[in-house]
Parts: sequence; structure tokens; C-alpha cells
Amino acid sequence: MNLLDAIDEPADLRRLPRAQLTVLARQLRRFLLDAVCRTGGHLSSNLGTVELAIALHYVFDTPRDRIVWDVGHQSYAHKVLTGRRTRMHTLRQLGGISGFPRRSESIHDCFGTAHSSTSISAALGMAEAAKLRGEDSHAVAVCGDGAMSAGLAYEALNNAGVAQDLRLLVVLNDNDMSISPAVGALTRALQRYREQPSATLFGELGLQYAGPVDGHDLDALIPALASLRQRRGPQLLHVVTRKGKGYERAEAEPTRYHGTGKFDPAQGLPAASKLARPAYTDIFGDWLCDMAAQDQRLVAITPAMREGSGMVRFAQMFPSRFFDVGIAEQHAVTFAGGLAAAGMKPVVAIYSTFLQRAYDQLIHDVALQNLDVTFAIDRAGLVGADGATHAGNYDIAFLRCIPNMLLMAAADENECRRMLTTAYRHAGPAAVRYPRGSGSGSGVAVERALEPIPLGRGEILRRGSGTAILAFGSMLAPSLAAGLELGATVANMRFIKPLDLELITLLAREHRQLVTVEEGAAMGGAGSAVAEALLAAGIVKPLLTLGLPDLFIEHGDPAALLGAVGLDAAGIAAAIRQRFGMSEARLAVHAG
Amino acid sequence: MNLLDAIDEPADLRRLPRAQLTVLARQLRRFLLDAVCRTGGHLSSNLGTVELAIALHYVFDTPRDRIVWDVGHQSYAHKVLTGRRTRMHTLRQLGGISGFPRRSESIHDCFGTAHSSTSISAALGMAEAAKLRGEDSHAVAVCGDGAMSAGLAYEALNNAGVAQDLRLLVVLNDNDMSISPAVGALTRALQRYREQPSATLFGELGLQYAGPVDGHDLDALIPALASLRQRRGPQLLHVVTRKGKGYERAEAEPTRYHGTGKFDPAQGLPAASKLARPAYTDIFGDWLCDMAAQDQRLVAITPAMREGSGMVRFAQMFPSRFFDVGIAEQHAVTFAGGLAAAGMKPVVAIYSTFLQRAYDQLIHDVALQNLDVTFAIDRAGLVGADGATHAGNYDIAFLRCIPNMLLMAAADENECRRMLTTAYRHAGPAAVRYPRGSGSGSGVAVERALEPIPLGRGEILRRGSGTAILAFGSMLAPSLAAGLELGATVANMRFIKPLDLELITLLAREHRQLVTVEEGAAMGGAGSAVAEALLAAGIVKPLLTLGLPDLFIEHGDPAALLGAVGLDAAGIAAAIRQRFGMSEARLAVHAG
Repeated sequence: MNLLDAIDEPADLRRLPRAQLTVLARQLRRFLLDAVCRTGGHLSSNLGTVELAIALHYVFDTPRDRIVWDVGHQSYAHKVLTGRRTRMHTLRQLGGISGFPRRSESIHDCFGTAHSSTSISAALGMAEAAKLRGEDSHAVAVCGDGAMSAGLAYEALNNAGVAQDLRLLVVLNDNDMSISPAVGALTRALQRYREQPSATLFGELGLQYAGPVDGHDLDALIPALASLRQRRGPQLLHVVTRKGKGYERAEAEPTRYHGTGKFDPAQGLPAASKLARPAYTDIFGDWLCDMAAQDQRLVAITPAMREGSGMVRFAQMFPSRFFDVGIAEQHAVTFAGGLAAAGMKPVVAIYSTFLQRAYDQLIHDVALQNLDVTFAIDRAGLVGADGATHAGNYDIAFLRCIPNMLLMAAADENECRRMLTTAYRHAGPAAVRYPRGSGSGSGVAVERALEPIPLGRGEILRRGSGTAILAFGSMLAPSLAAGLELGATVANMRFIKPLDLELITLLAREHRQLVTVEEGAAMGGAGSAVAEALLAAGIVKPLLTLGLPDLFIEHGDPAALLGAVGLDAAGIAAAIRQRFGMSEARLAVHAG
Repeated sequence: MNLLDAIDEPADLRRLPRAQLTVLARQLRRFLLDAVCRTGGHLSSNLGTVELAIALHYVFDTPRDRIVWDVGHQSYAHKVLTGRRTRMHTLRQLGGISGFPRRSESIHDCFGTAHSSTSISAALGMAEAAKLRGEDSHAVAVCGDGAMSAGLAYEALNNAGVAQDLRLLVVLNDNDMSISPAVGALTRALQRYREQPSATLFGELGLQYAGPVDGHDLDALIPALASLRQRRGPQLLHVVTRKGKGYERAEAEPTRYHGTGKFDPAQGLPAASKLARPAYTDIFGDWLCDMAAQDQRLVAITPAMREGSGMVRFAQMFPSRFFDVGIAEQHAVTFAGGLAAAGMKPVVAIYSTFLQRAYDQLIHDVALQNLDVTFAIDRAGLVGADGATHAGNYDIAFLRCIPNMLLMAAADENECRRMLTTAYRHAGPAAVRYPRGSGSGSGVAVERALEPIPLGRGEILRRGSGTAILAFGSMLAPSLAAGLELGATVANMRFIKPLDLELITLLAREHRQLVTVEEGAAMGGAGSAVAEALLAAGIVKPLLTLGLPDLFIEHGDPAALLGAVGLDAAGIAAAIRQRFGMSEARLAVHAG
């Protein structure tokens, strides 16, 4: 009998006798493994929270009670138990359900998550709201040990610890991991608490500590949660789980099985074959090792993204110069500032979307002091299956307004390497943005040398007439294709800051109209910078700025998403035709 | 004998016999009180760190050793002891020394500070650099208890606690205060540690805890520091000080004497007289109370800026709906998201420069979920004496690229009130930016009603010809004056997002040229948004965008600074004349 098939909402779960829950857990775990193997998605984290999701929904009553899943990449069991079982095959696909909790998706998703360490703040807000509104409901934050390394979680605990009249529970899901093994002093403290939980950090902060509890033992979990539900004041339940639980391969290699594509569970993930083409992440990782070999001053910093940022080899080759600071983007950047102030040359590898969390540190602790820090900004632009929460759409707008910053966008792999060298050699803050995945087409040869590109200089790659397309970074390839179709000139601008004013002036003089194309928010983006430059030069010229529209773009196949927002070759050509008229475009084709 | 006069660098201090240091401390405290009374500046915090600065420079050897003063508003004694005694009369004035440590000012200022809680990260970076470079030098972070509430400090401690081979000392300067009394669980823990420092939070995080020590007793401080200097591994010395120490009035009212103007120390600060005109901060505070009286759902949040943000009366009237979360901007915003998700209507009062620290939370936890949070952004634009670190120059650029955001800039006090109502009534994220201090001229009457303004609509305030000036927020008054001089049309744009496209189109149609004026970074700012709007509408028209230049603007008198960057009436008129030619401008005058 399949118990899972009968659960369409949490109330169905609560009608089951306790004795059947272990069977349900087995079925749910099997279901999740099968589902993720078919769609791809987060695996290890979800296999680790099957019992926790069952226990929480057995004891608490959502949506009256509120459960916030920190990061949310462990919320699949919750999704299945809250009416989305039959939609799991659409996970992370265009029009399908998200890989993270979304308020728009279910009344049981009380808060959207995806970036780490937000859950305690959000749950504390909900608990305060319940108190003010006289509601007798609980707020529960389910927060991993990795997420606890972030300052936001601490700020929330520091506030929660004095709110002794609230119904707030923090479930600390301790699996000793971020994506890679957890680091930092808290990790060591948690290891101590597993053995001897007398005075804890959480106790010092005013929370009632309970546990540790085996997070895969429903007979321990459910009574513990039920008991805590009776209490007032901020409670913390220390739950110990295993990432990948129940699937041997994932238990053995939780990092490798953290996020997967489709695979056969009987076979496991295919052996890491040499990819046909390296991803930008690999280009960065190789550059980092090569530059570090040349320059003893290079140190590299990651906020818990050693694998994702391509730093595994660097960490092995230069362990004393490698710093995984945990999920702590703010510290990563100010720490880099300190290193730079003392004569080192730090490289901060960070995803565009996570750099948002270190914005003040970049301004106040690096740019304002003109310190020599290199930012390698991965996942700039749309990211695909992870969706709006992980898209790196805003870095151009939020970085180019900061004085002293140098900002480049890489159009291909070799240029990425050269830009990283350029940024590194520049004696001040500098950033290179590059997209998720590999470059377009069949790729380019990547030179072994460490050659910079000329500062603030773009290049004309195709000479046409009528229209000049000014392409930034990843948009060069589709712009070249559109340029070919339209007979337009195409320039690879390379620099967002400083802009190549000479090139812009030249292109403006020689063309009827200009078009900018970028994989970033059009509002305030590189096209906007070109507009400013033209205005400052007193050049009055038609300009079409193409970029990402002013909305949060959901998950889906990256190429399809780019097509949908008109940032493929066909879309760019069509936009130019539409804006400047068919006849002009045709004329340009004939003239070219 | 005045010992102080003989100290031109820390080495001079170290040549004094220990027995004379108490005399020196008395002289230094007197000097600081006299200096701040003459220039204005931070008083309470600096009186509290006289002995600490002497002891640190007596034991450590800067610049070889590195001392990072967190926030830096307690660094005046350090400044005096490191060769800036004779420049203290220029403090915070144009061309004078900064109120904060600045790398450009002295080799003894190893890291610029001003925003809270950066010191441990920076010092940890310096300690790691020293280790990598084989230098036998110490890094010292002097961090207040208030600053310890910020996540950045915790992230740094979490990393410091596992760095057992470094020469790193954190001096916790515990005076039980942020600007207002400290809040949060850590504050309570510190109060416990003063009595019984057995197991501490810092110990849990891997730091060696020492103390508590009386921070005004040199005979306790110096041996403690000297002993810790011999140790390896991360040390924390808990030093208890009193804000305002030695000046009775400041000891009694440390918050009132936190930052002062000039005053007579014999008389104390003048009684808080009713100002001739309320500051924007007061407008906000009154609005907050009035709206809260109408709407039970309103809750208000401040990250440790109850006084600075004008929330004292609200806190008294509505204590259960007032949340001072400590120096924790990230938590302030995500907590607001949680409150909004549970049906409340939170108002986050925050300075523009500090909103930088909650950028990701604003995007990911509020805007992406389209949650109903109102942001009251104080100190937008230049701030004067606090200088570049506190200037709110980037909020327009970093907010307008975010989908779902509503963004307004207030041109006068009454408009500020109406915009706050507009933002509050809008069912989604909305922000109002307003400048430091009072509005220009003799001010306007502020209506008691709570009337919104029409969404996305600006207004023409002066009809002229030739040139149309599109003014944003605080730049309306000088734009009107410039418009009068030039015979130009002047519009109060009110909304940065959504822009009033109809008005822009109309103005473009009826004028030869457009000019935008804003008190914010020109790069990516409101003028840039107008340029985008014109381009999107296919309107090709000369446009001059005036705003803050692409550099960090130092401290000085706000009016003088605005004049220096051309954002007063004369500067605006001159820029328009220069760009569009005298003859055209004259023509416009005649036509108007």
C-alpha cells in the first residue's frame, strides 16, 4: 500500500497513526530519489530531511503555524506533503514548480527562500506578528548548520533570544555540511554539543537548547517537537541528520550529490568525464592556480563555494592561501580588505547574486579605500533552473555607480582569463563578471599566458553600416549573429567601467543608430552607461538598449529564458528591426 | 607640564614612565573635550576610550602592529597620539582631518572605518597577511559591544576562532551602548560576564576570553594587554568603559552627547529648544506616529538608530510595535519581510548608507516576494561632516534596478509626509528617500492629513521655454532658482520609479533640451532613468544629467560640498549654460 498517494495536504498526514510514519518516510525517500533522478535538482539535502519534514507536519499545523525552510533546497519532502506530489516531475523547469519554497506556489510556503540564513529573521517576524495579532500560532525556522555561519542568522538569534514571550522554534538541522564540509568555530562547537550539550552558544544567546536528537528517528523527533510546541519563548532543537540519507552513494559523497542532473539511481552519477568544453568556472579556477604560481601575494577567498567557484585544485595546491570563510559574504569582502591593506592581493570568488550580500563591504571597506581586491563574479546573468533568487541580474547596475571600481564582462573563455589578469594587475578594486556554464558555440582556445587586455578598450569585431551593436560580455555571440543578419557593425565593449568613450564616439559618428546588448538588468545597466556617455559627449543619436526586463525571471532552461526575453540572435535582430524599421534594417543589410 | 605637547608619535608615548600615563590621560581627556566643543563631533565615545588608546599605543607598536578602530568614532585619542594633535581643530571640516580613521591620513590608520563591525574581519585579514608574510606583528580590533550585534562581527569571530596560529586580539569595548542603549541577547550575556565570566559566547567560538578589565584603569589595562601580546591564537579582552567618562554631563546623558555641535563645556549642550524648522527626520517621526494611530498593522523597525531616525516618540507611544534590532541592518529587513508575510505593515527606517548593508535582503526577502514593506531612507545624498563613508549617494542606482520597487524622492517636508503615506498605502515594497537636515528656504507648511500623492505622477512647477529642468527630491529648490534665472520650465518629478513617462514625453515635446538634477550618483541615477525612458520612447533629444560625480566626496559643510559639485542654483544654471550655450539660454530667458 502506498501511503504517500493518499497525502494531498498535511491534514492527511496527521490522520495516519504514528506507527505508519516510518513506512511513509521510506516511501517518501524513494519517491524523492526517483523524482530528482528524472528532473535533476538538489538531492543530498532532501534525502536528509525526509523524517524532519514528516515530523514537522505531523506536529505543527500549517498554514496556521508557519514553517520557514532556510535556503529551501531541502524542501522537496515538504512540497510533496503539501499537495505538490504530482507536480514534482516539473521541478525547476519552465512553468513547473520551483526548487525552492515560493509564496505563490502554496499556502504552506509562508516565506520564499533560496539565499542562506534568512529563516530565523523571517520566523521571528512571523512570531512577533502572531503575538501582535493575538494568534496562537507557531513560527518554525528550519536552519542548517552551514547557514548558521552567516551573520544574518546571528543577528536574528541575538534578537530572538530576548523575545521570551514568543512561540518561536529554531530547528538546527546539523549535518556538518554546507555544500562542502562546514567550517568555522561554530562547526567545532556543534561537534562538542553532540557529545556534551551543557553550556551552548545558543544558551548564551538566550534560546532554550534541546537535543541533540537523531533527525532520522521519528520516535525521537516527534515527541521532541511536540514537547517544544507546548513551550513559550525561543527554543532551539538540535537535530542531527545525514546528507544523502538512505542513498548510499549520496551518503558517501554528499557534495557530489548536492545538486545533480538526471541520472540512473542504480548506476549513480556518471564518472566525472572531462567535459567537452570547460565552464567559465573552470577557466577561473585554472587562472587562479596559474596566477598564484607566479605571485606569492595572491590569496583566494570563497564564501562556502569551493566547488561551485572552481577552487578545488587551488585549495589543494595552495592550502595556506585558500580561505573558505563559510556562508559569510560580508566577512569574505572585509577580510579581503584587511588582507589587501596588509600587502596581499586577495581574489574574492563570488556569485553575482551573493555579492548583493556584501555590497556595503565592497563600497565601504574596499572601494572607498581603493584597496586592491579582485572580484571574480560567477553566475552573472540568468542561471536557469535555480531561478530568480539566484539570477545575477543586478551587478552591473549596483557596481558601476561605485567610484574606483573597474568592471568588465567576459565575452568568451579566453577573454575571461585575460580580464582576470587585467583585474588582478590593476592596483585597485576590479571585477570580472562571467556567466554560468560554458561560452557559446564551439568555444575558443584559451592561452596559457597571463596577458591583460588594454584598460578601458573595446574592439570592433564586425564592420557593417547603419547600425552599430555594442555588445557586453555573454551577449557578444548573439550580437555577432544578429549583426551578420542585419549587416550591422558589432563591437565587443569588454569594459563597463571605464567605458571606451573613444570607441563609442567613433561608432556614433559612423552609424545612424546604436544598440547595446547585455545580460543584466537594462535599468541602470551597461546600455544606460552608454546613454550617459553619449549625453555627456553631447552626441544625440538613436540608441536601443537591450537587456533583461524589469521583472523577476523564473526558473527554466537558460537558452529558452534568454530567447523569451529577446536576448538571443533572433530576438536582438527582431528588436533592432522593430525599433528602427524594416526598411532601415534592410538598407543596412544591402549596404553591408 | 603638559605631557601631551611632547607626543608627536606613539614612540614618544612609549618613552614616558608608566607612572606618568595617568596624568597624560587626564590631559588628553581635557584636550579632547575642549577640541570637540570647538569643532563639534563625537564626544561620549571618545571620552570613553582615552585610557584604552594610551594603553594600546603603550603596549603595541604601530604601524608595525595594526590597530583597527571599529566604527572609528572613538578614534580621536588615537589621532591625537599619532601626530594629529595640532590638526584636531580642523576635525570634520572641509580639507581638515576626518572624524574617522583614514588610511590616507596617517600610517597609523591601517584601515578606514565608519560603518560598524568591520574591525574583526579587517584585523583577521591583517593577521593572516602577517603570518603569510612571516611578519611578527599583531593585529588588534577595538570593537564596541554595540558593534558586536552585527552579523559581520559574528562572521569574523566564527573565522577567527579557528585561526589558532595568528596574532590577533579583539578588544571588546563594553560600555553597554550603541548610540542608544544596547539591545539583544549578547548585551545580556555581557552583563553576565561582567559578574561571572566562566563559559562565554566568545569561548564557545574558540577565542581566549580575558577580563573583564576596568577600561579606565591603566594599571589594569596595560598589564592585561602586555600579557595578551605574548600569546598566539585569537584573544578577546573584555574591557568595561563608560561613555562620556570624565565629563559629568556626557556620563549622565551619553546618547545626547554622542555627537554634538559646538558648545561651551561649562554650560553643556543648550536645552533642546524647538527648532525653527523640523528636520526631515522629525517629519518622518511625526508621520510614523500619526499613521500608527490609524493603522494597527503598522510596526516600525530601526537598526540601532532610534534617535537618529526620529523614532523616540513612536517608541514611547507604541512600545510593542517598535523594534530596535541593534546594529543589524540585514536582520531588520528580513525581519520586516517576515512581519509582512504574516499580515503586518512594517516600516523600516534606515539611513541610505546603511541600507547598502541590507541590499540582498531587500532584493531577495522583500522585493522578489513583493512584500509590503515601506523603507524610509534618511540621509540620502551628501551628509556633511561624517563624509564619504556616510553619504547616501547610491540608493537611487541600486534600488531602481530592482523589480517591484517603488522609489520616491521628497522635495520638501510636506511632500515627504505625503510620499510616506503613498509608500505605506502601496501594497508592495516602496521607498522614500529624503536628505539630512531640513528642507531649503523657509520651509513649507506640513498638513496633518495622511494624503498620498498620485502614483507615478510628477508636476510642472514653473513654465518656461527652451529648457526643461526635471528635478528630483532635494534638488527641486535649486532647480527652481536656476529655472527662474534661465527662463526654463521646472518639473518636480517626485517618482524615480515608476517614472512619469507622460510628463517626460510632454516636456520633451515642448522643449529643445532637458536637464535632470538629483542629489545622488549621476551614474545609474535618476537622470540615467530619464535617458532610458526617452530612448525607449524613441525620443532623440539633448539631455543633460546633473548629479553627484563619480568620486567619494569628503567631509565638509553640506552646502559648500553641494556648491563644489555644482548642485546649487548657480552651479545648475552654469552647467546648463555651458552645455547648451549662452545664446540658447539667453533666448530661453527672453522667450520666457
